[in-house]
Amino acid sequence: MESDSSEQVWIDFKTAQQLPLSAMPPPPSSLTTSLLPHNWQEKCDHRKQAQLDSIPSEWILKPLPKEQLNVMAIPRQCGLLSQLELEITETVDIATLLENLRLGLWSSVQVTTAFYKRAVIAQQLTNCLTEIFVERALARAKEVDDHLARTGTVLGPLHGLPISLKDQFSMEGLETIMGYAKWIGRVATSDCVLVQLLYECGAVPFVRTNVPQTLMHGETHNHVFGRTLNPYNTSFTPGGSSGGEGALLAMKGSPLGVGTDISGSLRIPSAFCGLYTLRPSYARLPYYGAVNALEGQESINSVLGPMANSMSGVKIFTKAILGTEPWRRDPLVLRKPWSESEYQLEYHGGGGRLCFAIMWDNGVVKPHPPLHRAMRTVKRALEAAGHQVIDWENHRHLEIYKNAETIFAADGGHDYLAECEGAEPLIQTMQLSEHVTDLEVPKSSIPILEEPLVKKLVGRPHHRSAWEASLDFGNYTKKNANLGNPTWITGKQPLCGQQLDDLSMQLFALPSHIQRFRMALTRIDSFYTTLCSALDLTCSVFPVNSVDPTLDDIQPPHEFYNHEDEHIYGIYEADKFPGCPVGLQLIGRVQEEEAVIRMTEIVAEILKASFMGMSDS
Amino acid sequence: MESDSSEQVWIDFKTAQQLPLSAMPPPPSSLTTSLLPHNWQEKCDHRKQAQLDSIPSEWILKPLPKEQLNVMAIPRQCGLLSQLELEITETVDIATLLENLRLGLWSSVQVTTAFYKRAVIAQQLTNCLTEIFVERALARAKEVDDHLARTGTVLGPLHGLPISLKDQFSMEGLETIMGYAKWIGRVATSDCVLVQLLYECGAVPFVRTNVPQTLMHGETHNHVFGRTLNPYNTSFTPGGSSGGEGALLAMKGSPLGVGTDISGSLRIPSAFCGLYTLRPSYARLPYYGAVNALEGQESINSVLGPMANSMSGVKIFTKAILGTEPWRRDPLVLRKPWSESEYQLEYHGGGGRLCFAIMWDNGVVKPHPPLHRAMRTVKRALEAAGHQVIDWENHRHLEIYKNAETIFAADGGHDYLAECEGAEPLIQTMQLSEHVTDLEVPKSSIPILEEPLVKKLVGRPHHRSAWEASLDFGNYTKKNANLGNPTWITGKQPLCGQQLDDLSMQLFALPSHIQRFRMALTRIDSFYTTLCSALDLTCSVFPVNSVDPTLDDIQPPHEFYNHEDEHIYGIYEADKFPGCPVGLQLIGRVQEEEAVIRMTEIVAEILKASFMGMSDS
Repeated sequence: MESDSSEQVWIDFKTAQQLPLSAMPPPPSSLTTSLLPHNWQEKCDHRKQAQLDSIPSEWILKPLPKEQLNVMAIPRQCGLLSQLELEITETVDIATLLENLRLGLWSSVQVTTAFYKRAVIAQQLTNCLTEIFVERALARAKEVDDHLARTGTVLGPLHGLPISLKDQFSMEGLETIMGYAKWIGRVATSDCVLVQLLYECGAVPFVRTNVPQTLMHGETHNHVFGRTLNPYNTSFTPGGSSGGEGALLAMKGSPLGVGTDISGSLRIPSAFCGLYTLRPSYARLPYYGAVNALEGQESINSVLGPMANSMSGVKIFTKAILGTEPWRRDPLVLRKPWSESEYQLEYHGGGGRLCFAIMWDNGVVKPHPPLHRAMRTVKRALEAAGHQVIDWENHRHLEIYKNAETIFAADGGHDYLAECEGAEPLIQTMQLSEHVTDLEVPKSSIPILEEPLVKKLVGRPHHRSAWEASLDFGNYTKKNANLGNPTWITGKQPLCGQQLDDLSMQLFALPSHIQRFRMALTRIDSFYTTLCSALDLTCSVFPVNSVDPTLDDIQPPHEFYNHEDEHIYGIYEADKFPGCPVGLQLIGRVQEEEAVIRMTEIVAEILKASFMGMSDS
Repeated sequence: MESDSSEQVWIDFKTAQQLPLSAMPPPPSSLTTSLLPHNWQEKCDHRKQAQLDSIPSEWILKPLPKEQLNVMAIPRQCGLLSQLELEITETVDIATLLENLRLGLWSSVQVTTAFYKRAVIAQQLTNCLTEIFVERALARAKEVDDHLARTGTVLGPLHGLPISLKDQFSMEGLETIMGYAKWIGRVATSDCVLVQLLYECGAVPFVRTNVPQTLMHGETHNHVFGRTLNPYNTSFTPGGSSGGEGALLAMKGSPLGVGTDISGSLRIPSAFCGLYTLRPSYARLPYYGAVNALEGQESINSVLGPMANSMSGVKIFTKAILGTEPWRRDPLVLRKPWSESEYQLEYHGGGGRLCFAIMWDNGVVKPHPPLHRAMRTVKRALEAAGHQVIDWENHRHLEIYKNAETIFAADGGHDYLAECEGAEPLIQTMQLSEHVTDLEVPKSSIPILEEPLVKKLVGRPHHRSAWEASLDFGNYTKKNANLGNPTWITGKQPLCGQQLDDLSMQLFALPSHIQRFRMALTRIDSFYTTLCSALDLTCSVFPVNSVDPTLDDIQPPHEFYNHEDEHIYGIYEADKFPGCPVGLQLIGRVQEEEAVIRMTEIVAEILKASFMGMSDS
């Protein structure tokens, strides 16, 4: 029987892939939510069942492959997708997809159906979705098709394109649960601004994707929808907090997704899942009307950004949304239109000969061998293409990181506790880690700050200034001598003379593959990603290669920077991670979205060309 | 003897114009600075004497007119300025001044000398200055002149122009005292970014101007340099906190000044002194390296802006600074170049037929009769010029104001107390007012917040959204129906159909003339100015006319909104204020600096033309 078999699968999925709650150590008493109703888990299970019921029965995988760790090939193998549906969903160049939609070669109903089927396959393998609303999305797709048929014109620059959305982007008439049991049944009475603008652009929002409880975590797990898995290895996490998007996009269950990022939540899952993303500076893209965590914390802000299998998706989304003049709809958005000349790298000498700086190690946590190899690969490819690559040494990483952690903890955990109170337990990995090290900063303690938060923020403009000055380091003495104490400039002098504009791009190591369930290692990646959030630097993530045990041997122990570094060193075992994607972060300046997109395109093109012509060692 | 006579004048100024400290009621014990050194006042007097000594003796007024309340005519009458110097200093059109400098008709040394003399005259009459450095400024002027002579080209868009700076903009080798006794002797080791950029533009920073202790006040008084007076009536304040600039510019002792504004500090003195100003949105202009109060408070930010006797000065300054790409020097500055098309009102139909909305009354404090007349005057003039003017009713003023006050008080006064501690008393008018009303919000209480500040900030995006939506109110139902509850839209429907872009300009009443010494009435004006700070709306102030007892009769009492309103009503007596300038505020949207400048020019041109052709009643 169909329903029995599918029910069994889901139950299997929720228990086998997840440690039983009873195995959790009890949380510290201050963090226990009082008066937990006896049926809280039942309520979550009920909602999860409703999700399952929303899947058309003919899209259910039978049997569900349970032993396979890498599930990436299953969409091709399972037989649920037609040849055309495979062709559509594997068109990672969004410009091509849109062109085919515009020309009517593919209808939006066809494209949306293809991605929806593949999304539902991905869901069964990785548990990446929250809201599933097939009929509604197909009705929208039909509306878009009808418009084209009737008028001969597209609705907008995203005409007919299905777009997946992290479970924060409210849509009228749908729940926005955002990982909280208490939010079950909260039906949005309006679309958030992003969704309004996506409709205006002709897009078809078609699924929403899973998040961690509280959003403030680099994994993706909550009591309502369960845990999302990494399709490259289902015993690994896809990262978080935009982990539902990460798993879905990796499986090509969506051509383009939108996630958010307050300290790495776009970048971690993009790196872990082999995707491209853009973390724009704050307020470049419209967040208004979306639900969020830590509202009222205004010092380090969450931003939204696109995630995709190609830079084409990243660029097209960003340009389309800016083209709607989003500041007219969201008062917090910068009045700054897309700049074609910035995209053409007018501030970077046109892009013909760029100078990149690589930070091999941030001095807090040493990247694992595959990341080091990825950086070497990129360096060699860039140099072969005529660009310059210089070394870049870290500075103030730990200080900036601790400052950011203080800001995130400024409400003493009230935000999370209030949402869990009387509804569900606060998930363990969000609580104070038992693994307390010298890097530990206060996280979820009540009551709050002993001294005013503002005092802790005094240094922030100086961090930003110092960092930005450091990006200019060839120019440092000339222009920025009086912006701060220059002793922290430890990078070598640039080799590229006075072409200072090109110095603003950095490559950083993002240890994308070491995250595993229940290890609470968010801090590891956060060390590399929080930097850009704290300084509001525009940055991207791009995939480079994947872990290869024959090339990525364990290195002899270095002199550990701290306990955290030692701990992370110990985690790496080359043969645990074969095939896991490795991504790097490319960092520009504040509000340099156009230039960062273009530079990432350049890097991606060079990498693609170099992989065709040279060995990867 | 020259020195004796000048010393006597200064002593007279410091005592007669200022209530003796002994007359102050004792501050609440929590605000008393402990261990005040017995010689604190001596230390201040000593610094004040050093300032006096920095004035060339031949520029000292003899005798100093002491009985005159309106001292505006004295620069012309005193005989210290040559005919050319009068011509130079009364050239309020900055484009003309710069053209004459560029053509070499006037050298920068001539121009700087002329303004310096007049600044020193203003200083003796209003006590508007802090740092006086004649030789240094003239050496810079000579450098600029030499460059032109040598190369035939100007150094930059502000070539040769003397510019006055509020006592926050640090200059290498000079003290930046910012109204604190403790800061005496703090010599800056570098120029702040603004000063660096002014040099790059060819300008001649030539004086710094007085501020209130703590900066957080709409008057201008501190223990080091004393109290600044309004040259239109020296028994009145010029406003604050950029009050030194206000008095100096009103007396034409500077062609262009730079002040700052966190809740009205550019706008209050500009209105009280008959000047133009621009309060840009946060981070449009470079603040980095300037000293400030409340550092680390990141929710409502201080901004810097130009003040001048003409809009020409406001525009030229803004365009020149943006032309230096200030984001390269100050990482907090938006990467947003000057937009000529926004200046040409591309988003406002080109500016041919605009639609303005006037808020006659914010529902918290009713403007005094001269302000109401100014609004009527503007309405008539705009309509006569073919523009539309509609009524605009207030909403949420008090709620937004209280939220802002909470943010300003978030550190419990620690910032002020730390700077005064062991050095001087905290000035009384910055302390909790004895005049507690239903509008009172916590100000300087220790310890700090009982609940997290962030919780109080949650509503801020909604305030901004709601307000921005309200600017669009013709369009409200169509576009913004789901951004909030529409019931607060109380304005009438626009008369101008679908030309919605033009609706974004508002005129607000700024009660510019009721401020008097020691009345602690900052709240009055703040009710009107804090709004734009809290919502980060770009706005300008422009002068309209002046108080005329024959036209500005006391009105019968209205139904008072609150005690504050009743109190303020009682202050007005038409015959106390004759000749005091009356200014209004023009409000645009976030980061709409170019458009606000152009609209203010349009309004100013229309007012100028209308005053030539019609009676002012």
